[in-house]
Amino acid sequence: LDKTDVAVLVLDAQAGEMADDRALLRLVQARGIPYVIAINKADLLKNRPEIAPHALWVSALTGEGIDVLKKRIARLGQSVDAPRQLVADLLSPGDKVLLVTPIDASAPKGRLILPQQQTIRDILDAGAIPLLCRPEELPIALKALHAPPRLVITDSQVFSKVFQMLPAGQPLTSFSILFARFKGNLAQTAAGAQTLDTLKDGDTVLISEGCTHHRQCDDIGTVKLPRLIKKHTGKELAFAFTSGGEFPDDLSAYALVVHCGGCMLNDREMMHRMNLAASAGVPITNYGITIAHMNGILRHALRPFGESEQQTF
Amino acid sequence: LDKTDVAVLVLDAQAGEMADDRALLRLVQARGIPYVIAINKADLLKNRPEIAPHALWVSALTGEGIDVLKKRIARLGQSVDAPRQLVADLLSPGDKVLLVTPIDASAPKGRLILPQQQTIRDILDAGAIPLLCRPEELPIALKALHAPPRLVITDSQVFSKVFQMLPAGQPLTSFSILFARFKGNLAQTAAGAQTLDTLKDGDTVLISEGCTHHRQCDDIGTVKLPRLIKKHTGKELAFAFTSGGEFPDDLSAYALVVHCGGCMLNDREMMHRMNLAASAGVPITNYGITIAHMNGILRHALRPFGESEQQTF
Repeated sequence: LDKTDVAVLVLDAQAGEMADDRALLRLVQARGIPYVIAINKADLLKNRPEIAPHALWVSALTGEGIDVLKKRIARLGQSVDAPRQLVADLLSPGDKVLLVTPIDASAPKGRLILPQQQTIRDILDAGAIPLLCRPEELPIALKALHAPPRLVITDSQVFSKVFQMLPAGQPLTSFSILFARFKGNLAQTAAGAQTLDTLKDGDTVLISEGCTHHRQCDDIGTVKLPRLIKKHTGKELAFAFTSGGEFPDDLSAYALVVHCGGCMLNDREMMHRMNLAASAGVPITNYGITIAHMNGILRHALRPFGESEQQTF
Repeated sequence: LDKTDVAVLVLDAQAGEMADDRALLRLVQARGIPYVIAINKADLLKNRPEIAPHALWVSALTGEGIDVLKKRIARLGQSVDAPRQLVADLLSPGDKVLLVTPIDASAPKGRLILPQQQTIRDILDAGAIPLLCRPEELPIALKALHAPPRLVITDSQVFSKVFQMLPAGQPLTSFSILFARFKGNLAQTAAGAQTLDTLKDGDTVLISEGCTHHRQCDDIGTVKLPRLIKKHTGKELAFAFTSGGEFPDDLSAYALVVHCGGCMLNDREMMHRMNLAASAGVPITNYGITIAHMNGILRHALRPFGESEQQTF
């Protein structure tokens, strides 16, 4: 239920509501998950009793009620989260935003990576003007504009390089930070990253990967990050790893959790993991924020955001 | 074979090459399709005779030779087409290119459509600077730049509107035209569109859709285009339609073929259809070029390209 946006409780029309069903429904209600009760095999019933408004008759055999059920699920799904904005809420119409996007071997052939696409779209939706350039062309892109851009956004991996190329005072942030903010966990992950400076010999760091696509994940999650964290802290640390759906219920053994950006986990599950860490008093951060912190650019990259988003640190 | 980039002829090691295999091989060779012969069930053979260099022993049972076969196919596949460029070959490093992209209900939520993505990426690969704006923000985007952009690219549907907003002499083209050029059929489709002005009462126009995704396709292919073409020509025309893999071998009944952009067909199949039309002496054009022509903007939108690409008309 940790990752459930909308619950569909399927009952057997002939069996009616069983004890297990009632227990499950209580769990769903206790968590405040929107739900619908689908009473299946309705075709087998001659007389249908009155049912509650959140229940409906369906038949997987005849297809009766399936359309109504789908529409109900879609409507409940829409009510789950107020849509957050990536960057549009920081912009005014006509603002220029410069995206400095390295194009390397990891970029998909002939395309843009999803975070770049989503950011461009969000800027357009705000009535603002996105410009893109590779780090190599940054000086030309700046010179092309009459006035400095309202904001520069770049990749964590080239943040320092880009920072040094920009005039003093130019607002700059990273895609990682925009996405941590978009997912609603910027303050918690930015605060969590501070723990990297206070880790002690013998501490265990849990590195959690939301996806199970090992070939690409191994490198950063299980190899690159442990090496960088060891180097940054200079301590004798132990590392534990989880991937995909697995995530410990008890985090008390860990001094810090470093989670991936969570693009393969839905918002509810990511929120659940963030809450687990918060209730256990264990700091949690994410890959992009960790890299930004270790590169010494986190504070700077947070400046474009309001006080309220930085209150935790 | 019309859509075959690489042929893999699978033989039975025990049966050897049969008459049918030889006939098939001759067809493949006649069409100049790169091929490899995979002699399967190699595990059943005690003594293996000498084989040609374009043949290899494999066993689907033991996996023997499968890796080599995959690599061979990949290498043959790479040799099929010289990669074409969308727009990069028209640009110099540091050039500014303005993409005017309407964001309407048909745009995917929070993303960019693929042609926009691919164009942005191609511009970045050229070391140039893409800027994006909605048509509403076009005046602001132009004012943001020190010098006029090297090129403006926009959607066929707003071409006229954008054209009127630009200063005289500003090079302007459309995504449709870039993609017709990318697919190697700009000259033929642009020439084909001229036929729209000479259609006569009783002519039949074939409208061919490469995809079978009817919900979105129906509207433009079977409803919108026939209406626009009837209005443009003022003639009594008949329309015929094909979709997906179907395409008539004999085009002699048609005065004009209007094909979709062909994004769901591979280059070889699209080329085959273009060639069928050319050999039958039937003009062929595509949706985007047709709309551009009927909007009176085709000639203007072709200006950014060299003489050699316009030689047919």
